[in-house]
Amino acid sequence: MTDRRIRAAVIGASGYTGAELVRLLAGHPAARIVALTADRKAGQTLGSVFPHLAASADALNLPALTEVAGVAWDGVDVAFCGLPHGTTQDVVATIPPSVRVIDLSADFRLADTDAYATWYGQPHRAPALQKDAVYGLTELARDRIRTARLIACPGCYPTSALLPLVPLVAAGLIDPDAIIIDAKSGVSGAGRALKEASLFAEVAEGVHAYGLAGHRHLSELDQELGSAAGRDVRVTFTPHLIPMNRGILSTMYVRPGGGADAKTLRRHLAERYAGEPFVRILPEGHVPATRHVRGSNHCLIAVIQDRPAGQAIILSVIDNLVKGASGQAVQNLNVAFNLEETTGLGQPPLFP
Amino acid sequence: MTDRRIRAAVIGASGYTGAELVRLLAGHPAARIVALTADRKAGQTLGSVFPHLAASADALNLPALTEVAGVAWDGVDVAFCGLPHGTTQDVVATIPPSVRVIDLSADFRLADTDAYATWYGQPHRAPALQKDAVYGLTELARDRIRTARLIACPGCYPTSALLPLVPLVAAGLIDPDAIIIDAKSGVSGAGRALKEASLFAEVAEGVHAYGLAGHRHLSELDQELGSAAGRDVRVTFTPHLIPMNRGILSTMYVRPGGGADAKTLRRHLAERYAGEPFVRILPEGHVPATRHVRGSNHCLIAVIQDRPAGQAIILSVIDNLVKGASGQAVQNLNVAFNLEETTGLGQPPLFP
Amino acid sequence: MTDRRIRAAVIGASGYTGAELVRLLAGHPAARIVALTADRKAGQTLGSVFPHLAASADALNLPALTEVAGVAWDGVDVAFCGLPHGTTQDVVATIPPSVRVIDLSADFRLADTDAYATWYGQPHRAPALQKDAVYGLTELARDRIRTARLIACPGCYPTSALLPLVPLVAAGLIDPDAIIIDAKSGVSGAGRALKEASLFAEVAEGVHAYGLAGHRHLSELDQELGSAAGRDVRVTFTPHLIPMNRGILSTMYVRPGGGADAKTLRRHLAERYAGEPFVRILPEGHVPATRHVRGSNHCLIAVIQDRPAGQAIILSVIDNLVKGASGQAVQNLNVAFNLEETTGLGQPPLFP
Amino acid sequence: MTDRRIRAAVIGASGYTGAELVRLLAGHPAARIVALTADRKAGQTLGSVFPHLAASADALNLPALTEVAGVAWDGVDVAFCGLPHGTTQDVVATIPPSVRVIDLSADFRLADTDAYATWYGQPHRAPALQKDAVYGLTELARDRIRTARLIACPGCYPTSALLPLVPLVAAGLIDPDAIIIDAKSGVSGAGRALKEASLFAEVAEGVHAYGLAGHRHLSELDQELGSAAGRDVRVTFTPHLIPMNRGILSTMYVRPGGGADAKTLRRHLAERYAGEPFVRILPEGHVPATRHVRGSNHCLIAVIQDRPAGQAIILSVIDNLVKGASGQAVQNLNVAFNLEETTGLGQPPLFP
Repeated sequence: MTDRRIRAAVIGASGYTGAELVRLLAGHPAARIVALTADRKAGQTLGSVFPHLAASADALNLPALTEVAGVAWDGVDVAFCGLPHGTTQDVVATIPPSVRVIDLSADFRLADTDAYATWYGQPHRAPALQKDAVYGLTELARDRIRTARLIACPGCYPTSALLPLVPLVAAGLIDPDAIIIDAKSGVSGAGRALKEASLFAEVAEGVHAYGLAGHRHLSELDQELGSAAGRDVRVTFTPHLIPMNRGILSTMYVRPGGGADAKTLRRHLAERYAGEPFVRILPEGHVPATRHVRGSNHCLIAVIQDRPAGQAIILSVIDNLVKGASGQAVQNLNVAFNLEETTGLGQPPLFP
Repeated sequence: MTDRRIRAAVIGASGYTGAELVRLLAGHPAARIVALTADRKAGQTLGSVFPHLAASADALNLPALTEVAGVAWDGVDVAFCGLPHGTTQDVVATIPPSVRVIDLSADFRLADTDAYATWYGQPHRAPALQKDAVYGLTELARDRIRTARLIACPGCYPTSALLPLVPLVAAGLIDPDAIIIDAKSGVSGAGRALKEASLFAEVAEGVHAYGLAGHRHLSELDQELGSAAGRDVRVTFTPHLIPMNRGILSTMYVRPGGGADAKTLRRHLAERYAGEPFVRILPEGHVPATRHVRGSNHCLIAVIQDRPAGQAIILSVIDNLVKGASGQAVQNLNVAFNLEETTGLGQPPLFP
Repeated sequence: MTDRRIRAAVIGASGYTGAELVRLLAGHPAARIVALTADRKAGQTLGSVFPHLAASADALNLPALTEVAGVAWDGVDVAFCGLPHGTTQDVVATIPPSVRVIDLSADFRLADTDAYATWYGQPHRAPALQKDAVYGLTELARDRIRTARLIACPGCYPTSALLPLVPLVAAGLIDPDAIIIDAKSGVSGAGRALKEASLFAEVAEGVHAYGLAGHRHLSELDQELGSAAGRDVRVTFTPHLIPMNRGILSTMYVRPGGGADAKTLRRHLAERYAGEPFVRILPEGHVPATRHVRGSNHCLIAVIQDRPAGQAIILSVIDNLVKGASGQAVQNLNVAFNLEETTGLGQPPLFP
Repeated sequence: MTDRRIRAAVIGASGYTGAELVRLLAGHPAARIVALTADRKAGQTLGSVFPHLAASADALNLPALTEVAGVAWDGVDVAFCGLPHGTTQDVVATIPPSVRVIDLSADFRLADTDAYATWYGQPHRAPALQKDAVYGLTELARDRIRTARLIACPGCYPTSALLPLVPLVAAGLIDPDAIIIDAKSGVSGAGRALKEASLFAEVAEGVHAYGLAGHRHLSELDQELGSAAGRDVRVTFTPHLIPMNRGILSTMYVRPGGGADAKTLRRHLAERYAGEPFVRILPEGHVPATRHVRGSNHCLIAVIQDRPAGQAIILSVIDNLVKGASGQAVQNLNVAFNLEETTGLGQPPLFP
C-alpha cells in the first residue's frame, strides 16, 4: 500500500525549533519526516543531538542528520526551515518550486525588502521569493496560507501580540498610536546558540529587559498593525528575559476608542475567535499564565479594565516554541495541505 | 452507535496526579472520563482548578468535580484513585467490585498489612481488599495486572529504582545487601498540599536530603527486592529535593557478584527489557537526564563501571508524574483492558 | 564598659523580612538585637526557624523567639515590625512612646485613614498614631525620618517605582496622568505564608500577572505621586510573579513633557541622586537586571528613549527584601539615630 | 599615613571566582585590590564585565582590567589566581618569589606531577614550584599554609567531602575502601565559559550525573584520603548538576569500623571542629541544605545512622564559590598573613 503521508524535510534540525518540529510531527498521522539536516552536525543521529527524541527517532525510523545540500528534494513535499535569518534565504533559493516551504526564520516575514535591510543589517538576497511569501499567522491569514508556496511563520513575540491586537486595530476599537507591549519570554527563545547571556548562571534568579535599542520583532509588529490600521504604526515593545524555559506573556496597554471599554474589546475578540481551536478569550476575572499553555499550541487572551479611564490591559500567553514557532508551523502545514487544522496538535499543556 | 470506550472515573482529580491522568486520558482513544471527584472542590470545573486543562475539559465535555459519594458507579468501568493514603482504603471499600481500581496511593502497595501499620502509622482498614491487590510495576507484573481487580501503582521512587534492580537481584547479578539508592526528585512529588517545605522560596536555589529517618518508599523497595532475592533485604535510600517541577533520577551503587561487571549488568537489563516500549537501556557511555523523559512514560537506564573493583553505578530516570504515577496508571489500564500497552502514551518528552 | 549600641527588637522575626533584618543587623556595628518575637513560634530559637541564621544567632548570642507580649520594652530603643497589616496597628499601639518604631507593614503608610479602610478592607484602629507616621522612602523623606517616632517603610513595588518617578513628577518633567508601571517580582515578596500560589510547582517555569483588580500598593503610588504632582494621580500598575526568589524590576512607560526627552529625565535623576550611596542612575545604553542588586540595598535606574516620540521607558531594579523592605528599614534606622547612612549596608550584591 | 593593607592582585578577574574574590575583598579591612587582570577583557572596567560589582568598583576605586603581563609585581603582596588549569602554571612561573600566590586552579593541587599528567592530560610545566605548594584546605593544613609561598586551594567538591572524611579516615573510624560520594552541584561550578551544557535551557528543570568516566576531582580525593589513611585509597565519586546557581551537597555513604556508629562519627567531628568558625557539625536529627550556606564561607555537616547495620550517611554542604573557592582563598590569605581568620568573611548566608 502506498504511503500517502506528506513527506517533510526539517532543515536546521539541531536547534530547539527543529527538535520541537520533530516532537510534534512524531504524532502527526498525515506527515512523515524524510530528511533532517544540520550542517555542523551532519552524520549524527537526532538522538545524539537531542536525547529526549532518541526513542521517537527509533520508533519513526528517522534518518540521520545530513547537510542541506544532501537532501533529495524530489522525494519531499514540504520543507520546514529552522535556520538562522540570513542563511535561510540562500537555502530556500535552492529548494525546487515544487516543494512548499514553511519558514521559521525572519527572512521572509517583511514584505518590504528595504525594511528587511534596515532591521537585519544586510540586503535581502532573494527578493523575488519574498513576493510569494505569506506572513503566516494562521488565524489571520488562513486563506492566503492555503495556497502559498512560501509561508513565513511569525516571530514568537509578534504571534502573542498580534493575535489580540490586529482584530482590535482593524475594527478601530483601539488607538494604534498608543500601544505598549511589555513582553516576558523564556530563554529557549534565544535558541541553542552559545551566548554568555543564555548561560544558566546569567539568567537564573533574575529578570531584565533587553533589545531596548529596537528589537527586530518591532518590524513585524509595525508591518502587521500598520496593515490593520491602514497607515503607518509604531508601537512600543519591551521584551524581558525570564528564568524559565518556555513561554511568552505579553502585557499590552491599549486605549480603547469610540466608547469602547474592556468589555467591548473582550466581546469583539471572543466573536472574532469563536470556533478557533487554539485561541481562547478568557472570561472576565480570569488571568492567563504561561504555564497554562506549556507544550501546547494554545494562545490564551484576557482583557482587563484599567483604573485610569480610557485604558485597558490585554494579556496574552503562548508557548514560544509551539504557537510561537513549531506548532504554528505545523498548523500552517495542516492549512496548506487541506488537513484538519488541529491534526498533530492535540496535546494538552504540560503542568506542572 | 454505541460508545464502547472504557468509562473511567478519576477520584481525587484536584491533585497533580489527577490532573496528569486527565492530560493523558484526553488523548486516549479507548477511554473516556465520566466522573471527576475532589471533595473539597466539589462543584468547581476542572478548568478552574487546573486552568491548563480548561480547553481539554471543554473539548472532552468533562463533568464538573463532585464528591466521591456522588459517583454513579454503575456507569463506571474503572476508577483511578489519586487520594492520600489512609483515606484511599476507605473510599476503595465503597466501590462496587464490578469496577476495577487503579490506585496511585500507598494504601495497597504492601502485601503485609503489619508492614503497612508500621510504616504508615495506622492499622490497615481494608485487609481483605489487600489480598486482591497487585503491585503494579507494569513491566514486572504484567500478567497479574491483566486480571487484577485492584492494581496498586508503585511509588515514584520505587518505580525508578526497581526497574533496574529487580531483574539484577533476581538473576543474582548484584548483592542485595549492598544496594545504595541516592535519589533526586522534583517538587511535584510532594503534591499540591500546602507545606512550608514546598514553597518556591524554600526550594529554589538549593538542594537537601530528606526522609532520613526512613522514607516510606523504603517499605516498597524492601518488599520488592526481598521478593526478588527470596529473602529479607534492607536497602539504603536517600531522597533529595531538587528545584525542578518533574523528574526523578536514582543513582544506585551496587556490587556485582559472581564475576559480573557493568557490562554484564547492562547486557542483562538490555535483554530483559528488549521490546519494552517504555524502558530503554542506554549504550555504554551515555548518561540519562530527567529532562530527556519529561512528560513521557519513559524510563532510561544506564550502567556505569565504577573505579573501585567490584562496584557499579546504575542511573535511572523517569518523570515522577508519568511513569512514576499517572502514566504507569494508564499503562496498567491498557494492560488490564487488553489494549495496546502504549495507547494514549505516545507523547515524546518535552524539552527544553 | 557600657555597651552603647542601639537596642533593637525584631517583632515578627519568623517571616522573610524578619530574617533579613537579622542578617543585616548581624553586621551592624552600632545596633544589637535584644528581642525577637514570633507569636506562633515562641520558644523556638531563630536557628530552628531559619537554619541559615543559626551560626549568626550563636555568634551574636541572640535570644530565643518570644511572644510580643513578653518583650521588656524599657530595654529597647527601636522596634522593627515585620508583622502582617492589621495586626501591626494593634501591636504598635502597645509599644511605649519612648521606643521608636520602624514598621515594614502597610498599616501606617497611608496618611488618609479612609484610604486605608478602602484599600485594606477594615477601619484603621490607630488613627492617632498614623498622624505621627512618616512614609519612609529614605532618599525622599530623610529629614522627616530623622525625628519621626514612627517610620512606615514603603512597600517593595512602590520603592522601586517612586525613586525615579517622584522627582520627575515633582519637577514637571513627566505627565502624571500617563504613567504605566509594569512590575516583575520574585516570590519572596509574598512572604512565607502557605498559599497554593506560592508553591514551587505553581510558580516555576511560568509567569503571570496578578492583582489586576487593584493591587494594594496602588494606594501608596497614588498617594506619593499625587503629593509630588500636587493633585490627584491614578497610575496604571500591573505586578507579575517571576520564578525567582528575590528582586523587582519595574518597567515604567512615561510621557516626558515640556520639551523633555529621555536624556533630560536621565540627567535630572542623576543630579537628584548624585551622592546617594544606594541609588545609581545608569549611563545611556546600560540596562539594569535584578541580579545586579541581589542581597544589596541598591537601586539601579535607567532611562531609555522610546521609539514613539514623546515617550520614554524607565527601568528600576531593587532587591525586594533589602531596599524593598529590611535594608531600607536599616537605612531608616541609621537616619533616625544619626548614624552614617550606609552603616551595616555595605554588602556588595551576590551574583551569580 | 601609610596604607598598610595587603596589596592583592586578582589574576583572572572575569570569571565567577574572580568576581567572588572582589565581592569578598571589598569588605576586607586589611587587604586592598591593586590589580585586576583578564587577558581577553583587558581595558574594560570590572563593572562592565560584572555589573553587580560596578558600585563596589567605584567605591574602592578599583583599577580597570589589564593583561597579566601588565601587572607591576613590586607593588603586590599576594596574587589570587583564578585562571584555568594549564595556563596557571605558566603565569605563576612569571610571578616574583616575593609575591605569595593563592591559586584557585587545579595546577598545584597534586603533589605527584605524574598524577597531574595523568588526570589533566598534559605534563606539568612547573614541577619545581609544585614542591613549594601546600594543599590549602584551611582547617586541615593551617600550619603549613601560614608559611607557604604557594597555596593551592582545593576544588569545590573535594572541599565539601574532605572536611568530614579526612578526620574520620585519619582516626580509623571509617573504612577508606568503602567511601561513596554522591555530590550535587550548582551550575556556577562550571564557570562562565560558553558550553552548551551550561545553557539555561539545558540545565533548568532537570538533573543528571556527569563526569562518570572519572571526574578530575577524584585525584584530589584520592590524594588527601590516601594521605589520611597512610595508603592508597580509591573512592567512588559521582557529581550531579542541579538547576541552581550555587551550592554543593555531598551525600557520603561510609562504613564505620571498630564499633563506631553515626553517633561516634558525629562526636569525633564535633570535637575535631570545635572552635572552628566555618565548620559546624549539626546535632542529631538536623539536615543541612545548600541554601543555608549560600554566599557564606560555612560548611555544615550532618552524620546520619543508616538502616543497614555498619553503615552511616554523611551530608556536607558548602557554597561552591565561597568555601569551595574564593572564600577559602580569602581564609587562606588571612592565615598566611597572620590575620584573624574570619576577617572579611563574616557575611551571614543569603536566604531566600
